[in-house]
Amino acid sequence: MDVAVDDQAVSEIFRVLDLTGVLANAVLGGVIARRERLDPIGFVVLATLTGLGGGLIRDTLLQAGPPVALTDPTYLLTALAGAAIAYVVRVEGRAWDGTWPVVDAVALGCWASVGAQRTLDVGLGWLPAILLGTITATGGGLVRDVVLRRVPGILGGGTLYATSAIAAAGTQVTATAVGYPVAGSLVALAVGAGLVLLARRRGWMLPD
Amino acid sequence: MDVAVDDQAVSEIFRVLDLTGVLANAVLGGVIARRERLDPIGFVVLATLTGLGGGLIRDTLLQAGPPVALTDPTYLLTALAGAAIAYVVRVEGRAWDGTWPVVDAVALGCWASVGAQRTLDVGLGWLPAILLGTITATGGGLVRDVVLRRVPGILGGGTLYATSAIAAAGTQVTATAVGYPVAGSLVALAVGAGLVLLARRRGWMLPD
Amino acid sequence: MDVAVDDQAVSEIFRVLDLTGVLANAVLGGVIARRERLDPIGFVVLATLTGLGGGLIRDTLLQAGPPVALTDPTYLLTALAGAAIAYVVRVEGRAWDGTWPVVDAVALGCWASVGAQRTLDVGLGWLPAILLGTITATGGGLVRDVVLRRVPGILGGGTLYATSAIAAAGTQVTATAVGYPVAGSLVALAVGAGLVLLARRRGWMLPD
Repeated sequence: MDVAVDDQAVSEIFRVLDLTGVLANAVLGGVIARRERLDPIGFVVLATLTGLGGGLIRDTLLQAGPPVALTDPTYLLTALAGAAIAYVVRVEGRAWDGTWPVVDAVALGCWASVGAQRTLDVGLGWLPAILLGTITATGGGLVRDVVLRRVPGILGGGTLYATSAIAAAGTQVTATAVGYPVAGSLVALAVGAGLVLLARRRGWMLPD
Repeated sequence: MDVAVDDQAVSEIFRVLDLTGVLANAVLGGVIARRERLDPIGFVVLATLTGLGGGLIRDTLLQAGPPVALTDPTYLLTALAGAAIAYVVRVEGRAWDGTWPVVDAVALGCWASVGAQRTLDVGLGWLPAILLGTITATGGGLVRDVVLRRVPGILGGGTLYATSAIAAAGTQVTATAVGYPVAGSLVALAVGAGLVLLARRRGWMLPD
Repeated sequence: MDVAVDDQAVSEIFRVLDLTGVLANAVLGGVIARRERLDPIGFVVLATLTGLGGGLIRDTLLQAGPPVALTDPTYLLTALAGAAIAYVVRVEGRAWDGTWPVVDAVALGCWASVGAQRTLDVGLGWLPAILLGTITATGGGLVRDVVLRRVPGILGGGTLYATSAIAAAGTQVTATAVGYPVAGSLVALAVGAGLVLLARRRGWMLPD
């Protein structure tokens, strides 16, 4: 038991971080839609795919009921809000360039942790938990890139993005195995987010 | 209650329209396969994706049992018939050019309405119902375009295709909310099909 | 009843062939990753998609619980082993060129047979069984090609690959219909693998 941690508070924190990640990634989808000169539907498609795609793939593979993104309306509304923001505001410049990487890193750690835990909760093992944690964190970007006919960033050339998700999901799995799922999720989040930021700052990449 | 409308008759009409849409879209998939000089397997793949893809994605996300396209053999047989027609007959010329837009518009309205209602029947809310209605109507073409490495038409540049699906699904959701799901489905169909045809005729598009 | 065949032994044989197919296809995914100069994550992504993609799509569509690739850890471990082999060893030269086509052909027959039978076991009909048998055998390669932005091989130009899967799945369905599912799976495997090898050797292709 996680006696040292307030479970309810951590769960609340993760929900906020999760939705912040959806919003930020939906805005990113919209920013890409603007760059590609798409119409409003294009904004919605890219924002939804980027913000919710990873979770949708995870929940579809888990087969434990309809995806959270469909049962909890907050997710879809948040993704649509992201699309609207990117459509109305020209999201660029220093504020975005300074904020986005941090929000993105936190979202990655949060999603990897949540995805791994949800897989364990359904009764699957540690290996699928790491896989689905990683898919939760990176799947949306992958699908968006495929739809846009780009080489998906996850295939290489980036700075430890998937690797950080694997590390975060692995931390979550380990923490749950030793009996501290809730406290562990905070550590997993920190590991994932920290590694993404460090790798980006220092240009760390995997060797070919 | 829909006292003014014969539920059974409407349900029968929708099944016919639904399958007509599958056939027409499967033929379209086959026409594209011919243009790309694919072999018979290519015809079947593109016909199946175009005719059944949207419903398959919807049912996979809903997680309420295997997709209708797999449990009701009529769907697969219809899609295969479409592939066969496009393979044997050179589907082109005035008859096709005159018929296709109308059949396509009716299919869009029908699929959006059916997809939205099915989502509501599973117990999900109005927002996922509109999303899945739209995916039912446009998902097959999206997947086909991605497999063919084209920029999916839904991302922009078309004439209110996804917008019409959203309008039809929204009409269905509204009609069900006020207690007229069956009569409403006829209105939703008319809204979706009418908007597609109007937009195509007048060249209406969304602004960038 | 299959009185003439030892069910347990056949089931054991199929498991070994199935996993051999996963390994060989995962190695192929890794070989492609090396050719594209991807980093280790790229190896894992392509190996997993190629080795497990078809089964994942099948199980997701069947909606009869989480995919086997997630519930049985042997599958994921085998796919990762394939990625690791392709990363460490330069898999090329005569040994690979001689072995790969045979292993690939056996995997195709095995996957088509297993996929068709699993669909029947869930209670679906012969047509979806043939479709999902074919998807099991060819879906991984299709998804991998789409992610890599290649024209999927299944769309045409190849030598009876999907056709052989259809033949194997059809054999399995027929054998089950006449009451010999287990003995039939050996025939289905032989039909699928034999046809792939024959077609490759003789350059058989479908007409446009």
